[in-house]
Amino acid sequence: MQRRTFIKKSTTTAVGLGLLGAAHWQGNRVSNKLRVNGVRIESRIQELAKYGRDETGHGYRVAYTQGDVEGRTWFMELMKKAGLEVSIDTGGNILGKRAGKKVGLKPIAFGSHIDMVPDGGNYDGTLGSLSALEVIEILNENKITTHHPLEVIIFANEEGGLIGSRAMAGNMTAAGLQQKSQSGLLMAEGIKKIGGDPDRIGACIRKPGDFHAFVELHIEQGGTLEKENLQIGVVEGIVGIVDWEVTVEGFANHAGTTPMNLRQDALLAASKLVVMVNEVIKSYPGGQVGTVGKISAWPGAYNVVPGKVTLGLEIRDLSADKIEQLFGEIEKRATTLASDTKTKIRFERQASAVKPALTDKRLQQQIDAAAKALGLTTKLMPSGAGHDTQQMASLAPVAMIFVPSVGGISHSPNEYTKPEDMTNGANVLLQTILAIDAE
Amino acid sequence: MQRRTFIKKSTTTAVGLGLLGAAHWQGNRVSNKLRVNGVRIESRIQELAKYGRDETGHGYRVAYTQGDVEGRTWFMELMKKAGLEVSIDTGGNILGKRAGKKVGLKPIAFGSHIDMVPDGGNYDGTLGSLSALEVIEILNENKITTHHPLEVIIFANEEGGLIGSRAMAGNMTAAGLQQKSQSGLLMAEGIKKIGGDPDRIGACIRKPGDFHAFVELHIEQGGTLEKENLQIGVVEGIVGIVDWEVTVEGFANHAGTTPMNLRQDALLAASKLVVMVNEVIKSYPGGQVGTVGKISAWPGAYNVVPGKVTLGLEIRDLSADKIEQLFGEIEKRATTLASDTKTKIRFERQASAVKPALTDKRLQQQIDAAAKALGLTTKLMPSGAGHDTQQMASLAPVAMIFVPSVGGISHSPNEYTKPEDMTNGANVLLQTILAIDAE
Repeated sequence: MQRRTFIKKSTTTAVGLGLLGAAHWQGNRVSNKLRVNGVRIESRIQELAKYGRDETGHGYRVAYTQGDVEGRTWFMELMKKAGLEVSIDTGGNILGKRAGKKVGLKPIAFGSHIDMVPDGGNYDGTLGSLSALEVIEILNENKITTHHPLEVIIFANEEGGLIGSRAMAGNMTAAGLQQKSQSGLLMAEGIKKIGGDPDRIGACIRKPGDFHAFVELHIEQGGTLEKENLQIGVVEGIVGIVDWEVTVEGFANHAGTTPMNLRQDALLAASKLVVMVNEVIKSYPGGQVGTVGKISAWPGAYNVVPGKVTLGLEIRDLSADKIEQLFGEIEKRATTLASDTKTKIRFERQASAVKPALTDKRLQQQIDAAAKALGLTTKLMPSGAGHDTQQMASLAPVAMIFVPSVGGISHSPNEYTKPEDMTNGANVLLQTILAIDAE
Repeated sequence: MQRRTFIKKSTTTAVGLGLLGAAHWQGNRVSNKLRVNGVRIESRIQELAKYGRDETGHGYRVAYTQGDVEGRTWFMELMKKAGLEVSIDTGGNILGKRAGKKVGLKPIAFGSHIDMVPDGGNYDGTLGSLSALEVIEILNENKITTHHPLEVIIFANEEGGLIGSRAMAGNMTAAGLQQKSQSGLLMAEGIKKIGGDPDRIGACIRKPGDFHAFVELHIEQGGTLEKENLQIGVVEGIVGIVDWEVTVEGFANHAGTTPMNLRQDALLAASKLVVMVNEVIKSYPGGQVGTVGKISAWPGAYNVVPGKVTLGLEIRDLSADKIEQLFGEIEKRATTLASDTKTKIRFERQASAVKPALTDKRLQQQIDAAAKALGLTTKLMPSGAGHDTQQMASLAPVAMIFVPSVGGISHSPNEYTKPEDMTNGANVLLQTILAIDAE
């Protein structure tokens, strides 16, 4: 039954693939038949979820906390049992190496992260991490040695700003190491706590060309695949992100004694700005998003007309130019708004900006082909969320595989991905790694 | 020169007064000539300002703090030197009594408060307090004993919710005593610290009819008098205030992966609500004000679409009915707004609501006459700010005298009232007390 299914899919695939890997698919019947153990992935997701809880029982495997350390220890034990040569680089990333058959080939790397945001969910990062381990176990069970070396990478502190992958790509600064992490520790202290060495942070840097490819499986964290009833997202790139701190200055005054026409109400102006940002973002075609996610008003009392408001503005798109174009329009309209409301509006670009990172077209095709060979539906789509793959893009051809998130919910205890979707994603990862290796 | 001026003013006044007190003015030439010592008021304002500073040197004579205690001690010394019989009632109010000539008359009371908001100004409350003391000193210097007893009242913790006057009017609850004050102490602890007795709070209650009248001189705290170039505000009433905590519930989601059309952005909805409130308040004729003075968004990060926003809404007007009418319109429009933005909007009326308090028409006329007799321009106007006079309105006929605030600024270190305006206000207070007494 499985074989018949396989042959059928294979035929479909060969048509769909065009030039892609048809030779491989026909020449590697054993590899093509390999399937991950979905039940094992699912049960390990649940097991890992036990590590890192806050006092109220909510998920709190925040990087550098005790829960993170325990989760990593558990994960490294599994990696060792799977025969990987495990080490922690100076950035705190966990590396698990498996030798290949051919001398001189660069490793095919894959993995994700297992740290989470406070009160986060159980699938973000962990699915890609446990599926990477699953790929190794399936190869072990089937006594398959790939041509290329394989390297499973579990990045440290993804949620705190891609810290581990940033260090690996050589983008970690001394100032960054002195920033406070969500755990309360400085980044440098946190890195030390999980076994890294912040004083020798440069020792974890990998150079462009050090990897043959990098592939990351991840939950979508959005609702597009579910809404369109699709199974696999082939990520075309990871959006660039620019944040601005916006300051609106009016004049704080007594809310009882200041007539409406004499006010310079910073919150009224800020509110008009929030509405305007939404209008500008939606007025352009495309998949860009713009968000005002934080706000504070000073002095912040029922009985005082706010004198100052600060807002957090974020724009994301696959094109850096488009981000600038949208911001230009917002800035232009803000000038008029400030004059209309007798306020001053200032935008301060944050240092946290990240450039868009496009994935490798050849790898996109291989993922698409692997998915279709498995009978799965696919969609080429951007990743609106940031991922370690962004940092890896400067070191190697990169790719990402998305699976549906129920309700598009993420960074929440309600984050959920169905077992069959996880299995599909892990199978696509397995087949993609094999396809890359076979080429 | 002073006498000639006096005669001239007196003539003008008699015309302006109509039926009011002309007999008094002609029969009390000595009293009519009395003028306060403006330099003394001004220098005491500066002296009192030295009490109560925070670490950075900003004004912090917040009720129940050490600065408040020291300022009160300084003030009570001056009251005693002025021959007043000084006591502290169980609510912490400072009372300074001066006997009258006629037996059986109820006291004419006047005064204000000397506590301040954090980082507040030097004129709010202190002008009325020091001018009340000045009235006593002028009477002393001129060896005048009034028919009625006089009572200078320095109310405790005005800025924290009219606590002292509330207690005096019998409106202090047991729960209120257990609330935390700005000083960090519970109200009960604070009252004890300044010499009151929270366990016997009822002992400070004064009954309706216990006072002949109550008059408070205060800075306007708004910009109307200055803008219209007028010298004295005759307060027609103190506005009612109703506060609502507004909760806007949307759905928190990833700001990168949630397309614009799938968002339930609570901050976007809240911003539309702020703009709508402003439109509704301004769309009705009259002097009502409506303010959204506080806001917080949850979870409050650049990269999360806000799931929940809370706002503080306040409406003030001299008419309680109008406040309800305005709120009704806001509530109605909020229903549509919630449906348009896929959010839920809830209004929770706060217990802090205060009813409008109208001043006594006869006292209004006496203030107006006294001001005009002094050659000052006047305006009948509401008080947008709350005052102890509100509480006193349930015990006696009440009145308030306003003087201009430069730039309408209050509750700020930039609060300022010119010396000549303070002198004018204190003279009007003095002449009003004498006019009430003479009647």
